[in-house]
Amino acid sequence: MIVILKHDPNREQLESLINWLQEKGIAIHTSIGEAHTILGLVGDTSKLDIDLIAALDIVEDVKRVQEPYKNANRKFHPEDTVIPVGNTQIGGGTLTIMAGPCSVESEEQVVAIAKAVKASGATMLRGGAFKPRTSPYAFQGLGAKGLEYLKIARQETGLPIVTELMDLSQLPLFKDVDVIQIGARNMQNFDLLKAVGHQDRPVMIKRGMSATYEEWLMSAEYVMSGGNENVILCERGIRTFEHYTRNTLDLAAIPVLRRLTHLPVIIDPSHATGKNWLVEPMAMGAVATGADGLQIEVHNDPAHALCDGPQSLKPEDFDPLAKKLLALHKAVKSLEG
Amino acid sequence: MIVILKHDPNREQLESLINWLQEKGIAIHTSIGEAHTILGLVGDTSKLDIDLIAALDIVEDVKRVQEPYKNANRKFHPEDTVIPVGNTQIGGGTLTIMAGPCSVESEEQVVAIAKAVKASGATMLRGGAFKPRTSPYAFQGLGAKGLEYLKIARQETGLPIVTELMDLSQLPLFKDVDVIQIGARNMQNFDLLKAVGHQDRPVMIKRGMSATYEEWLMSAEYVMSGGNENVILCERGIRTFEHYTRNTLDLAAIPVLRRLTHLPVIIDPSHATGKNWLVEPMAMGAVATGADGLQIEVHNDPAHALCDGPQSLKPEDFDPLAKKLLALHKAVKSLEG
Amino acid sequence: MIVILKHDPNREQLESLINWLQEKGIAIHTSIGEAHTILGLVGDTSKLDIDLIAALDIVEDVKRVQEPYKNANRKFHPEDTVIPVGNTQIGGGTLTIMAGPCSVESEEQVVAIAKAVKASGATMLRGGAFKPRTSPYAFQGLGAKGLEYLKIARQETGLPIVTELMDLSQLPLFKDVDVIQIGARNMQNFDLLKAVGHQDRPVMIKRGMSATYEEWLMSAEYVMSGGNENVILCERGIRTFEHYTRNTLDLAAIPVLRRLTHLPVIIDPSHATGKNWLVEPMAMGAVATGADGLQIEVHNDPAHALCDGPQSLKPEDFDPLAKKLLALHKAVKSLEG
Amino acid sequence: MIVILKHDPNREQLESLINWLQEKGIAIHTSIGEAHTILGLVGDTSKLDIDLIAALDIVEDVKRVQEPYKNANRKFHPEDTVIPVGNTQIGGGTLTIMAGPCSVESEEQVVAIAKAVKASGATMLRGGAFKPRTSPYAFQGLGAKGLEYLKIARQETGLPIVTELMDLSQLPLFKDVDVIQIGARNMQNFDLLKAVGHQDRPVMIKRGMSATYEEWLMSAEYVMSGGNENVILCERGIRTFEHYTRNTLDLAAIPVLRRLTHLPVIIDPSHATGKNWLVEPMAMGAVATGADGLQIEVHNDPAHALCDGPQSLKPEDFDPLAKKLLALHKAVKSLEG
Repeated sequence: MIVILKHDPNREQLESLINWLQEKGIAIHTSIGEAHTILGLVGDTSKLDIDLIAALDIVEDVKRVQEPYKNANRKFHPEDTVIPVGNTQIGGGTLTIMAGPCSVESEEQVVAIAKAVKASGATMLRGGAFKPRTSPYAFQGLGAKGLEYLKIARQETGLPIVTELMDLSQLPLFKDVDVIQIGARNMQNFDLLKAVGHQDRPVMIKRGMSATYEEWLMSAEYVMSGGNENVILCERGIRTFEHYTRNTLDLAAIPVLRRLTHLPVIIDPSHATGKNWLVEPMAMGAVATGADGLQIEVHNDPAHALCDGPQSLKPEDFDPLAKKLLALHKAVKSLEG
Repeated sequence: MIVILKHDPNREQLESLINWLQEKGIAIHTSIGEAHTILGLVGDTSKLDIDLIAALDIVEDVKRVQEPYKNANRKFHPEDTVIPVGNTQIGGGTLTIMAGPCSVESEEQVVAIAKAVKASGATMLRGGAFKPRTSPYAFQGLGAKGLEYLKIARQETGLPIVTELMDLSQLPLFKDVDVIQIGARNMQNFDLLKAVGHQDRPVMIKRGMSATYEEWLMSAEYVMSGGNENVILCERGIRTFEHYTRNTLDLAAIPVLRRLTHLPVIIDPSHATGKNWLVEPMAMGAVATGADGLQIEVHNDPAHALCDGPQSLKPEDFDPLAKKLLALHKAVKSLEG
Repeated sequence: MIVILKHDPNREQLESLINWLQEKGIAIHTSIGEAHTILGLVGDTSKLDIDLIAALDIVEDVKRVQEPYKNANRKFHPEDTVIPVGNTQIGGGTLTIMAGPCSVESEEQVVAIAKAVKASGATMLRGGAFKPRTSPYAFQGLGAKGLEYLKIARQETGLPIVTELMDLSQLPLFKDVDVIQIGARNMQNFDLLKAVGHQDRPVMIKRGMSATYEEWLMSAEYVMSGGNENVILCERGIRTFEHYTRNTLDLAAIPVLRRLTHLPVIIDPSHATGKNWLVEPMAMGAVATGADGLQIEVHNDPAHALCDGPQSLKPEDFDPLAKKLLALHKAVKSLEG
Repeated sequence: MIVILKHDPNREQLESLINWLQEKGIAIHTSIGEAHTILGLVGDTSKLDIDLIAALDIVEDVKRVQEPYKNANRKFHPEDTVIPVGNTQIGGGTLTIMAGPCSVESEEQVVAIAKAVKASGATMLRGGAFKPRTSPYAFQGLGAKGLEYLKIARQETGLPIVTELMDLSQLPLFKDVDVIQIGARNMQNFDLLKAVGHQDRPVMIKRGMSATYEEWLMSAEYVMSGGNENVILCERGIRTFEHYTRNTLDLAAIPVLRRLTHLPVIIDPSHATGKNWLVEPMAMGAVATGADGLQIEVHNDPAHALCDGPQSLKPEDFDPLAKKLLALHKAVKSLEG
């Protein structure tokens, strides 16, 4: 951490700061310039509250050198995390394809879609039982019954299931879910993050609509600091000035996260774009950029889906797409040599 | 609602759409142009799912004419909502000043600050007992004990208290709180919104960091549709490309909300800017723009505050500011004449 | 165009509006609802000024149905535009690779890089002679001399050259340039756009840092309305809240523009990310998403480049990348069947 | 400037960097930590190219401590700049009100508006002769003739005029203009900035739609480094995700710029919001936040304005507003004591 002092700082306050830092085991290197004096703080600065130092009268600015996350940091965990799920895995060179309806509507629907997407090459079943909806008047999901239908679909197909947990109170129902999804709107619901940090299920955290990479990794850190190391990150578009697409899919998240963290990265082109004709090109781009997997909405009747119809693919469109993505993944891997 | 059809739409599908709409009691006016056919939907379209229609093969675009919120809509409730709190009120021409520490640290601290801000003209006491913090390693608030200290400060000063509810499980502790605050990160925590919709306490909803006015009003609608009409909206800065300030304070929210809704609007210049020297000018701007009130952080020792020190004012700086704001409010009202 | 009237509009003003529209040859279909009356305007509405109508007292809102661009619009020009450049072409299934230094520094430098990138598979040489720099104290480019060096490099390698025009006054020097580049900061320099609209050279327009797709296409329309149909669009990242990368590369621009326009789309991963280790993954993503080409910075000594060193690749790193991109392009095309 | 080295940097490269810096007269203070070695660079680092250093293999990150602008920097010029214009001034405690039509349409129009706004209290006349328009098909301004009409209006009223320069080639026509305006879209048209840096007229630079404070000040620096010290900054809204208003007016720019620079700050609520009913509240907010002035669109017939009608006020609405703003300015000054 680097502390930039104001010009001609009060000596007493400066000494008091230096003593306080030294008590915390921090060594200090001072550089005195014409306009500014700079303190280089050496030692474990992760315990220091950057805001507290920045608030001091004598301080002009504080700049962090080290990342504020540890468990999620590749520097302290150089190997890729590979997460076993059912009889498959996420990360480690596999291309995970999570497919299914935005919202579970009936047993027949979800079982039929599960069978179809499995046949096309999907390795996991996605589907919402509890649905975060902007309007209180919109369909809110089937709830516990939806979870039951997902489990039936799993039984029928063997596909592990991933589904969203919206509130702590629903946690008991999620014991048997393969991957717990934390939605973008809950990325900084810290009580929820703490709670899933004590579960033994993998947790997939969707990026908040305006969350920086660092904030997103801090949310992973919340889960990991509770003991749950199996965290997956899912990019689903960020909010920008461009409104032609629902959000702007930030594919640079893939290589950036690859460098900053050891956790696997999934891309959701369906929610990111909000338009089903953009799913294929963006999914192709995600695979070539190096994603560990994709989450894709598939619905047997998108025009009558109870939510998010415009971004869903029909099973007959998903089938060639899944095959194309798997072939591309293979081609890209062979280019890596 | 206006439905723009693709060029030369399938007749069968078009008829099926028209029948379906008519069954829902919607009248349809058709305009046939060279490039597009347009359907004007007349009737109560708030029940229609815009996404569902947009997903149809024959539809190019759907545009909403009516706002998707009703309880929060000024069109259906032209009078300003005025919310009684303790022996004061929010809205109706009053300038509410909520002041206090970001985080409650001890009984002495919060009581001392409460007395100071009351003497300066504050009408409510703010303070966090449960704190949303980006890092799992940062101070998370005193919790239930913090709420107790706030209540003691209320007893000593008569100031009503406003404090943040982070999770449903904390709700029983909030029975006796004067105004329940929903933080920016929880603006779309829909289970939480539904729950406070069934409380008899006023609820203040902070704007999410990247929430549009409409999404924010839909969150108010969640609370109001549960029966709780006493909702306050608090602007606390939005996330933009400019990072010199923590967020960009959007003061246009005041007159825009004034037009769209009847609910009172509070401005939080402390969190919006993240710098205590920006609190005064932005608070002045907020009052002249027409805010119903302000939420301002005051701490007796900002340099050692356990959270958010850099944006807090000392009581001796808050005192002249509060007086200036009240004088400005008076001056602005006299100009309205 | 759809005009939504305020509740109970002034009859006289309404008639005057309707007459004015009919005089312009617009037919009007009226839908009278409970809350709103809607006018559907049928005919060539591209001549109508939407702002003018929106300003009328009786009008609540105006919504455009048709895009405001014509020459650039795929609806009126369904075939892909293919632009011949030297002995190659841009668009039409080719993968164009424009490579070279951010800034031309000397004859030796640019000739050496041109030879290297040609050997690796690049099809065009890029290089800046006139440089837009944020600081007046930074290196501003070699100017006319830089253009000369580029032309020498073209002579030595046969690679066509693309280079940025910053001001009208430089235009005479650009007669012999193969593709004139308009930089992001000049995307809405309308006098410059008009001027290049009268040239017989292809023009590549970089997307402004906060330009919507529609604004970008309107800039293309400026050039095309002057008679120059050979316009190329280059996405180079948009400005968002995320500052880890210099900008956020919006790869969805590729399929979106493919639908809206017939013009070719190039991706610049170097400027978009500002980090050379992100160039490869983002370039791979761009190819799989369907880009017509890439613009990549290559410098023989990035650590001593006079500008934008951090995002440049060395020729020895560009070589395997170019080969990988061409192989990926082939693989992706074979998947399309 | 602070240079953060990668873990275990190559010794030879490190020595070469240190020698190079020392040759430039920079002293270096080294802090060796566990994970990072930090170099504190002391001396005049404004000559150093931050990107060049950041590009070195051994460097992880570089952080600037000093601002990259000098002439515009309050640190080196603590007194407020006050700019004399005609028989008035900008800055120095005055509230400048620039009012007039978006676009000059005829001599009668601009003279009539000039007389009206002068009577209401405006101190300068604004009006566009050359108009930047997103569409090539929209009205582009009267050009040279428009400038003539503005000068006639000046003669009739004594109001100094401010009008936009769009291209270098128009410069000869601007000799006699009181304040040259550089539009938001040209904020980084560096050739234009250099040219007006050699004029003896004051220059008002509008903030680019996605320009940071620092970039904006660097544009001022361009002008000032050419010798023209009379620069005015005009905030006109930034582009964010919120599209209800045309842009988001960033009033925090006022106190932030007050701290960073000595140049006066003007607010344009008309372009920022795009809606005439938002002009009054935002102008009031701007005055109370401490703006040196306002730029407001006034049109005698907004519904038939040839551009930007929706945001214009009628003279009869401007009159009470101007009086209110001047009264508020007086009240705010009296509160400052």
